[in-house]
Amino acid sequence: MIKYFDNSATTRLDENVLAEMVPYLVDNYANPSALYSIGKKNKEAITLARMRVANCINANVNEIYFTSGGSESDNLALKGIAFANSKFGNHIITSSFEHPAILNTCKFLERFGFRVTYIKPRANGIVDPKDIEKAITKKTILISIMFANNEIGTIQRIKEIGEIAKKYSIYFHTDSVQAVGNVKIDVKEMNISSLSMSSHKFYGPKGIGVLYMKSNVNFMRIQDGGHQEKEMRAGTENVAGIIGTGKALEIATKNLKEHQIYLKNLRDYCLKELKDNFPNIRINGDMENRLPGNLNVSFPRSRWSKAFRRVR
Amino acid sequence: MIKYFDNSATTRLDENVLAEMVPYLVDNYANPSALYSIGKKNKEAITLARMRVANCINANVNEIYFTSGGSESDNLALKGIAFANSKFGNHIITSSFEHPAILNTCKFLERFGFRVTYIKPRANGIVDPKDIEKAITKKTILISIMFANNEIGTIQRIKEIGEIAKKYSIYFHTDSVQAVGNVKIDVKEMNISSLSMSSHKFYGPKGIGVLYMKSNVNFMRIQDGGHQEKEMRAGTENVAGIIGTGKALEIATKNLKEHQIYLKNLRDYCLKELKDNFPNIRINGDMENRLPGNLNVSFPRSRWSKAFRRVR
Repeated sequence: MIKYFDNSATTRLDENVLAEMVPYLVDNYANPSALYSIGKKNKEAITLARMRVANCINANVNEIYFTSGGSESDNLALKGIAFANSKFGNHIITSSFEHPAILNTCKFLERFGFRVTYIKPRANGIVDPKDIEKAITKKTILISIMFANNEIGTIQRIKEIGEIAKKYSIYFHTDSVQAVGNVKIDVKEMNISSLSMSSHKFYGPKGIGVLYMKSNVNFMRIQDGGHQEKEMRAGTENVAGIIGTGKALEIATKNLKEHQIYLKNLRDYCLKELKDNFPNIRINGDMENRLPGNLNVSFPRSRWSKAFRRVR
Repeated sequence: MIKYFDNSATTRLDENVLAEMVPYLVDNYANPSALYSIGKKNKEAITLARMRVANCINANVNEIYFTSGGSESDNLALKGIAFANSKFGNHIITSSFEHPAILNTCKFLERFGFRVTYIKPRANGIVDPKDIEKAITKKTILISIMFANNEIGTIQRIKEIGEIAKKYSIYFHTDSVQAVGNVKIDVKEMNISSLSMSSHKFYGPKGIGVLYMKSNVNFMRIQDGGHQEKEMRAGTENVAGIIGTGKALEIATKNLKEHQIYLKNLRDYCLKELKDNFPNIRINGDMENRLPGNLNVSFPRSRWSKAFRRVR
C-alpha cells in the first residue's frame, strides 16, 4: 500500500466510476455521431453525463462542453473568447500565479496583439478584487482568475470578482481545475461566464475535461473539424471518459461535505505533526480560505534543511 | 450479436488492448510529470508506448506526440506549421475532399492571412501529384494530402507527393486517420513531415491520437500550458489511452497482412452480393488503390431507390 499525498497532481480513479466506463470502452463502441441506433444510444449517454455535470455547478445542459482536459478547456475559453471579441477590446486581466495553462495561453495571446495585466495576489495568497477593478480599462474584454490556486490552495474571492465583471460587462473565466470536487460551485450565483475542470482531479479518468461556457458568451472554437459539441469542439467524443466524468462529478458533489471534513482532518493532522517536529515552519497562504486537502509550508534554515542538504 | 459494418467510423476496442490499459486506469494512477517513483514509472510506460508507435511507421521515438485524437493532430500539424513558418510564405496546398479536421482548419487559417489551394481529385478519387506540383508557388510552405479518403477509401499517391514536397523543400502533412492499421506506412521512405492518427480507428480507445512530426520540422504548439510532450502539447497525459495506443498499433502492425486479406474478402463478398441484387450499382473511386475494408457505391434510379422512397 503506497501512501499517496499528491491529490493536487492527480487522484485515483474511483472503481464505481470505472464500472460505469467499462461498457463504453468495449461493448458500446459506436461513434456517437453515427445515425444508426447504437450510435444514437451513445449520444444519449453523453447527454446524461452532460446533465450530471451541469447539475453539479448549477449550469444548463447546453452550456457544458467536453474537452480533453483542464488545459484544453483553459485554452478554449481564453483564446475562444479573446479572438471572438477582439473587435470590442484587446485587454485581459488575470493573476500572476495562475496555472501555466492560463499564463502561457496569455503569452500566446500577447503575440496576437492582446494586452494582459497580471495582478499579484496579496501576501495571504488571495487576489484582492479591488486590484482587479482598478486594472479595468475600456478595452478589457475578459477577466481570468483561478478558483483555487494549484500550489498553495488559496480560494479566490470568485463571487466578488463575478460581481465586478458583471458591473463592467466583462466576461469572467475561472480555471477551477483544483476546486471542482473540493468546494461548492454555483456558476449562476457567482456570475461565472466560463469555467474549466479536469476529471482526473476528482477521481475521474485522465484525458477528459469540461468547459462550462455560459450560453450568452460569444466565443469561437479553436479545434476545427466535425460537428461534435455543437460545432465548438471537433473530434470523435471520448465516450467512456465522458461517462466517467459525469459519474465522478456526481459522486464528488454528493459526498462533498464528508469529503471536505475528511480531507481537512488529514491535513490538520499532517500540519500538527509537522509543527511538532519543525516548530519553525511557515505556512504559505491563508489557512481559512483554502482547499481542505491543501497544505503548503516552507522550512526556514533549520536542522531540517541541513538534513535535507546531507541527503542530497 | 450486432452486425457492425462501420469500421471507418470507429472500431471495437481490442480486449488485449483494454487488458494493458486497466492497470493504468486504476492502480498506476500517478501523474507522469511527478518527480517521485510512481510518477516516473508512468513516464517510462509512456516512453515504451512512444517507441511502439515510432517503430510501426519507421519514425524516431522523439518524433511521436500524443494528442486527444486525429482532429487535434491535424489542427496541431497545420496550425503549428503554418504559424511557425509564416515568414517563409503563406500558401498551403490541400485537396478538396479532405476530412473536415483539415478543411475547417484551412478555413481557420484563411482568416489569419493564409491562402489555400484545394486540388480536386481525379474521377477515380485520387489526387494527381502533377496537379499538386502545378499549384506550388514561391510562397508554398505546406502540402496536406490525406493518406486514404474517409468516404471512398481511395489511397493517395503519398510517396510521389512526398518526393515533390522534398524537391521544392515544402513540408508535407498527411492525415492518416483512415490508413493507419490498414496499410503499411513508412514516414522516411515516403518523405512525410507530419502524420495524424486516431487510436479508435485501429481497435484502440477513443479520445487519444498521435501526431508524428519529423524532428527537423519547425512548428509551434497550439495548446499552451505545462511541459508535457516536450513542451509541444500541454496537459496531463492520458496514460491509459497512451498505453492502449501503443498496444493497439503494435497488434495492428503485426497482423497487417492477415487483416488486409480478411477485410478484402469481406468487402468483395459484400460487393458481389450487392451486384447480384442491384446490377446497376456504381462503385465510387478506384478499386485497386483502396483501403481493404472500404466499399462505397451509388444506387442509380432503380427498383431499389423506388423501394427506398416508399420506406421513407
